[in-house]
Amino acid sequence: MKWSGYFIPTLKEVPAGTEAASHQLMLRSGLATMLTSGVYSYLPLGWRVLEKIERIIREEMNGAGAHELLLPALQPLELWQQTGRDKTLEEVMIRFKNKKGALMCLGPTHEEIITDLVKTFVQSYRHLPVTLYQIQTKFRDETRPRFGVVRACEFIMKDAYSFDTDMAGLQKTYDRMYAAYKRIFARCGLTPIISEADSGAMGGSISHEFLVPAPIGEDRAKDSDGKEHLCIEVGHIFQLGTKYSEALQAVFLDEAGQRKPIIMGCYGIGVSRLVATIIECHHDDKGIRWPEEVAPFTVELLPLQVQDEAVMAAARTVYDGLTKAGIDVLMDDRDESAGKKFNDADLIGLPYRITIGKRTLQEGNVEIKTRSTGTVEMVPVSGAVERIIGLQKA
Amino acid sequence: MKWSGYFIPTLKEVPAGTEAASHQLMLRSGLATMLTSGVYSYLPLGWRVLEKIERIIREEMNGAGAHELLLPALQPLELWQQTGRDKTLEEVMIRFKNKKGALMCLGPTHEEIITDLVKTFVQSYRHLPVTLYQIQTKFRDETRPRFGVVRACEFIMKDAYSFDTDMAGLQKTYDRMYAAYKRIFARCGLTPIISEADSGAMGGSISHEFLVPAPIGEDRAKDSDGKEHLCIEVGHIFQLGTKYSEALQAVFLDEAGQRKPIIMGCYGIGVSRLVATIIECHHDDKGIRWPEEVAPFTVELLPLQVQDEAVMAAARTVYDGLTKAGIDVLMDDRDESAGKKFNDADLIGLPYRITIGKRTLQEGNVEIKTRSTGTVEMVPVSGAVERIIGLQKA
Repeated sequence: MKWSGYFIPTLKEVPAGTEAASHQLMLRSGLATMLTSGVYSYLPLGWRVLEKIERIIREEMNGAGAHELLLPALQPLELWQQTGRDKTLEEVMIRFKNKKGALMCLGPTHEEIITDLVKTFVQSYRHLPVTLYQIQTKFRDETRPRFGVVRACEFIMKDAYSFDTDMAGLQKTYDRMYAAYKRIFARCGLTPIISEADSGAMGGSISHEFLVPAPIGEDRAKDSDGKEHLCIEVGHIFQLGTKYSEALQAVFLDEAGQRKPIIMGCYGIGVSRLVATIIECHHDDKGIRWPEEVAPFTVELLPLQVQDEAVMAAARTVYDGLTKAGIDVLMDDRDESAGKKFNDADLIGLPYRITIGKRTLQEGNVEIKTRSTGTVEMVPVSGAVERIIGLQKA
Repeated sequence: MKWSGYFIPTLKEVPAGTEAASHQLMLRSGLATMLTSGVYSYLPLGWRVLEKIERIIREEMNGAGAHELLLPALQPLELWQQTGRDKTLEEVMIRFKNKKGALMCLGPTHEEIITDLVKTFVQSYRHLPVTLYQIQTKFRDETRPRFGVVRACEFIMKDAYSFDTDMAGLQKTYDRMYAAYKRIFARCGLTPIISEADSGAMGGSISHEFLVPAPIGEDRAKDSDGKEHLCIEVGHIFQLGTKYSEALQAVFLDEAGQRKPIIMGCYGIGVSRLVATIIECHHDDKGIRWPEEVAPFTVELLPLQVQDEAVMAAARTVYDGLTKAGIDVLMDDRDESAGKKFNDADLIGLPYRITIGKRTLQEGNVEIKTRSTGTVEMVPVSGAVERIIGLQKA
């Protein structure tokens, strides 16, 4: 991708009314922009990060045997009345009457919908177990949206729901999800504290929260040493048991022909919130330092003199080499000052920066800088791609 | 994927209250299920089709130089009042007052939002041209939802918006989008009639509709021979000009330092509607006949006797071979009658079916059936993968 034809509106100044480092950096680096209180647009660079996070989630969820689907945001309130959660979640639920006069809501979560769906199609133990998930937009009428996408009125969730015949089956599914969650967060560059927690409005018994220490955290968690941390909740998994299946009559016939309520679990990840959380954990005073797997691009290629034929020829060679090797590269081909380009490179924080300048090029070299460590090294033009591959493996 | 652990709830009977062949087949083949009037859940098989369509759209849009982002569904009504479309679209727009008392709506389209966004970041001709797109869920309070996902209250759109400095630039962008649209629909197995059309509520001058002939079509189109067809509108592209940029003051400084309104175009594809349209064009009385690029899986592997060790060993060999070759395969490993399995195979309509039965296997053969032509051939077990690759290329 070439910066000049792309859409990365970086900001030099810290936007007014922002406190969180991640919020400031998301706006300044052109990842997102606010439409109205608690509502954000993801710009192309931010969308790429979301895409990479979603890919990780899909790989790990599919690997754990879950199947993806897509449930609607528009929901009849009637289903929520059957579980009583039209009351429990009244505070944040967006409701309206449609043209036909039916009471509708925008789903703040999907236990009711998926239970109703599964009960239609699952009649026998032979259809179980099954785990279904979606990556979908949720809506909450937050009184006090805060910290950008961390507490927003519109946000992206991964929500999974498991259906088992007995508690032993649920425990197995739950353990598999627990392990998948650890892998997902690790690949996002996060090491959450995992804490047994209250099930709250979800119902059920056992639940675990995945909490990432960050100054803007609104949860408290004790680490393994007993020290308390402010944390952002990035995931929460629940053994729901039969709360929803009983309320909505989701039953199956077991091997003996007995009708039994399906045993459920549910598993959430705040996908858009993860973007902010990763930035909270990976930045310095100059900008973001993306972990490799979620970086919008892996390499920023920075030719210093875009009018210089030799510099641009070398840049194109490296660009093509990286692209051919399957490495995402963003070339800052703007005719801007070196200072502006270096500042923007630090701000958007791609893992590796390759600088191509007239002077070093005379010796046949380019400069590679690793954003996370600040390490700088000179390598021959012809060895740049290989060196990036080497650094990625390290 | 193995059918037994997956989630494909096929239905034998035609569901009540359905008229359209595509609607019936989407429900019967376990692609989707209705939550409430005009609102559908996509089950795993349907989600896979959506994913494949979205991949095609992304490849072609990125190839045409457009950049993906993601805009919010929640929108302040105030922006719509500035263009007067709070009135034009009043009939279908879902509105509510949020907790803070602000009038909000769910976006039925995004011209206002994107224009407001672009005007914040684009000040100079040097930032233009740029084309941005998203694949996103839209909401319309339809009085009469019809034909399943064809006219629904919640649906997925690809909407793109282009920003140019002059009409010549817009024409170039428009031509590029026009060409990309032709490729997208061709890859989906569709040959739309392209018709110059009314711009309606969008404003602007020139526009083109992409119309696919189908019995449930609600538009009329004349083909190149002058014959009239009932058609489903799958895409619509518009040269908007300055309607939105003037109303929302989206201006740029040209090379002479003059303030000018940005010249806009917009380009829509009904993504979820495409699923139904493809089925309208590709089915017979037994079920769907998926075009290859959008089929949920490419091959259905159908071992007839799942208790037979030799049959299952051969099935596993073919399954692994296909997977290794990067071919999506669904194995119907259910312990069901041959009749039920054959019927379901025809119903879900994957492009190729490989049947492995005790009798033919004794001669070392499996049967390959091409769904679109009905052609049946016997091939040696060891040659099955290669034959599928050969058929794909044909």
